[in-house]
Amino acid sequence: MSSLGYVSPQTMHFAEPLLLQSGASLRDYMLMYETYGTLNADKSNAVLVCHALNASHHVAGEYEGKPKSLGWWDNMVGPGKALDTDKFFVIGINNLGSCFGSTGPMHTNPATGKPYGAAFPVVTVEDWVAAQARLADALGITQFAAVMGGSLGGMQALAWSIMYPQRLRHCVVIASTAKLSAQNIAFNDVARQAILSDPDYHGGDFYEHGVVPKNGLRVARMVGHITYLSDDDMAEKFGRRLRDADTAAGDDGDYKFGFGVDFEIESYLRYQGDKFSEYFDANTYLLITKALDYFDPARAHGGDLAKTLAATRAKFFLASFTTDWRFSPERSQEIVQALISNRRQVTYAEIDAPHGHDAFLLDDARYMNMVRAYYGQVWDEIAEAQ
Amino acid sequence: MSSLGYVSPQTMHFAEPLLLQSGASLRDYMLMYETYGTLNADKSNAVLVCHALNASHHVAGEYEGKPKSLGWWDNMVGPGKALDTDKFFVIGINNLGSCFGSTGPMHTNPATGKPYGAAFPVVTVEDWVAAQARLADALGITQFAAVMGGSLGGMQALAWSIMYPQRLRHCVVIASTAKLSAQNIAFNDVARQAILSDPDYHGGDFYEHGVVPKNGLRVARMVGHITYLSDDDMAEKFGRRLRDADTAAGDDGDYKFGFGVDFEIESYLRYQGDKFSEYFDANTYLLITKALDYFDPARAHGGDLAKTLAATRAKFFLASFTTDWRFSPERSQEIVQALISNRRQVTYAEIDAPHGHDAFLLDDARYMNMVRAYYGQVWDEIAEAQ
Repeated sequence: MSSLGYVSPQTMHFAEPLLLQSGASLRDYMLMYETYGTLNADKSNAVLVCHALNASHHVAGEYEGKPKSLGWWDNMVGPGKALDTDKFFVIGINNLGSCFGSTGPMHTNPATGKPYGAAFPVVTVEDWVAAQARLADALGITQFAAVMGGSLGGMQALAWSIMYPQRLRHCVVIASTAKLSAQNIAFNDVARQAILSDPDYHGGDFYEHGVVPKNGLRVARMVGHITYLSDDDMAEKFGRRLRDADTAAGDDGDYKFGFGVDFEIESYLRYQGDKFSEYFDANTYLLITKALDYFDPARAHGGDLAKTLAATRAKFFLASFTTDWRFSPERSQEIVQALISNRRQVTYAEIDAPHGHDAFLLDDARYMNMVRAYYGQVWDEIAEAQ
Repeated sequence: MSSLGYVSPQTMHFAEPLLLQSGASLRDYMLMYETYGTLNADKSNAVLVCHALNASHHVAGEYEGKPKSLGWWDNMVGPGKALDTDKFFVIGINNLGSCFGSTGPMHTNPATGKPYGAAFPVVTVEDWVAAQARLADALGITQFAAVMGGSLGGMQALAWSIMYPQRLRHCVVIASTAKLSAQNIAFNDVARQAILSDPDYHGGDFYEHGVVPKNGLRVARMVGHITYLSDDDMAEKFGRRLRDADTAAGDDGDYKFGFGVDFEIESYLRYQGDKFSEYFDANTYLLITKALDYFDPARAHGGDLAKTLAATRAKFFLASFTTDWRFSPERSQEIVQALISNRRQVTYAEIDAPHGHDAFLLDDARYMNMVRAYYGQVWDEIAEAQ
């Protein structure tokens, strides 16, 4: 049970068209969001939490009657937690193009009366942030105490600091990067090709065919999942252990000499792939990987990240994890360097953790204590300003 | 043009059944092989070169009338080259289950009169070595001057040193490992799942359906290819460069906001995937990845590699490459340590090369000179023994 108790999502409809970075626009759209804690009188205690690839607005708490519905960052956000909802008013928003309630590819395209499918416009991190800013407008929040995110969520926080420098006091960027590497893009493209070449994808119109490109999604998730874990952690958790070995009895098990499951790691990955393919939307997966690939705010400044971050006004907290090979500490260090060269105030924590990229979602005392201490300062600052 | 000139493959038929590690057996089979150089009178100058995942018996030279048919290790093997065919008699053998001529899944299963397909028995590195030993028998070679291979080929060389300690003077193991890690197995299983879930795979019987599971093979190759290159090398070669950017004109290009090719790395990987899916057999891919996964000679000795290698009698040369993250230098070091603890003579070279796992196939002066120097010693030793 979450210490936040039961929570409920809300929706907000936006009738004004949103012009996207691609040049396309969404005529109107809906955003799904949740809030935890209480907005104070001068609306200075709001923290926006941006989600990563397969997460949503459901950051913390539980849904009534759904005991397995714990929010994805419930260990981080709640009463007395690192991001303390007794102090802060925390908002989770589901991004455009997602499959968890905000307008996305499975919704009706007003131009055709049919689901968007692959016709849903490709959205970028900057488009998401622009949409999030409108929700902040509607809630009367002119400046966030902090905008925060991990991985792709961290990219959104970083984009906030560049696009709306005055609208956030603090920018909290965890296990993220200012741009994907060629290898990151390569893994994303493998995932996309797996989906696009699944005959059940039907050019994105699978909704009409009553099928889902499960095989493609499954392979996409499997390859993604490998990049979330560290080599060492995988070795520790699974190693070469066979699925049917009775290790308690000292039995190493036998090879099956077929293409079924031999090793625990195969069983684990296939299970992750199967589970994912049952709830995630294929078009959303494509869209989100493209948003990842395209994110590169320094591109507008000839690749100069320091020049790009000159626009920022926030104070920054960054954290990275030593065994994260998806977005390694070096990627966070690049951002830290660029901020320091602009004389921005930066706190940077490099956490020695074994769990690879996934570490940003996991409990780790050093990590949680760092975030807790930082939000303590944020809180003191807000209290002083009042 | 290869300095070896034109070469021709040969075939040898084996009528005696081969009992496999799985318990299955091949009633009879054929092996495809090539030889370069001349076997000396006492048959002491033979070097067996074992191939890796997608290679074959065609190690060096060219086929007449096929100008693009250069052998896969032609830079290593030939007159005056590191493995000098003016001195050594070099043999390349295509492994069982491959798709380049030796008996494999596309050949007729004598039990059914139809292609084996997925009914082709799962073969192991040890099975391959046992089959190779029979070819050596037929050629009258009781002891190889060296057995050599890179990657999966290196595993075969290592298996030779354990299974037939007296039959090789030297064992040359390049960019290899004594067993796959959980992460290695995970990548292999993603590749297998991509193939197995392609509807054109037809449970392995796609030959009868006149189709090929190209999409699955393509994704399998793409994910494999990522692991062959180093992150740095990919960054250097491709970075975030867009496919249609006119960099000469200072034009960075534009994002396409779709699911086609944006980045050079996508174009490169898809091309590699497409090319591979046109010539490689899906069942062979499955078989070879299983042979990789299963290889773990220390398993028979409770995981103790030193105990396992106590059986060896050869002298060893091992090489690894600093940026190889598929089979990192640590994996070679494990083998070196286990050999040293057995007081075996070992030469180990850790080559500082940017090209990742692929480096073992590429020209690199330090690497080639090390191998050349080593074979110089091998040659001196043979000459002395005469």
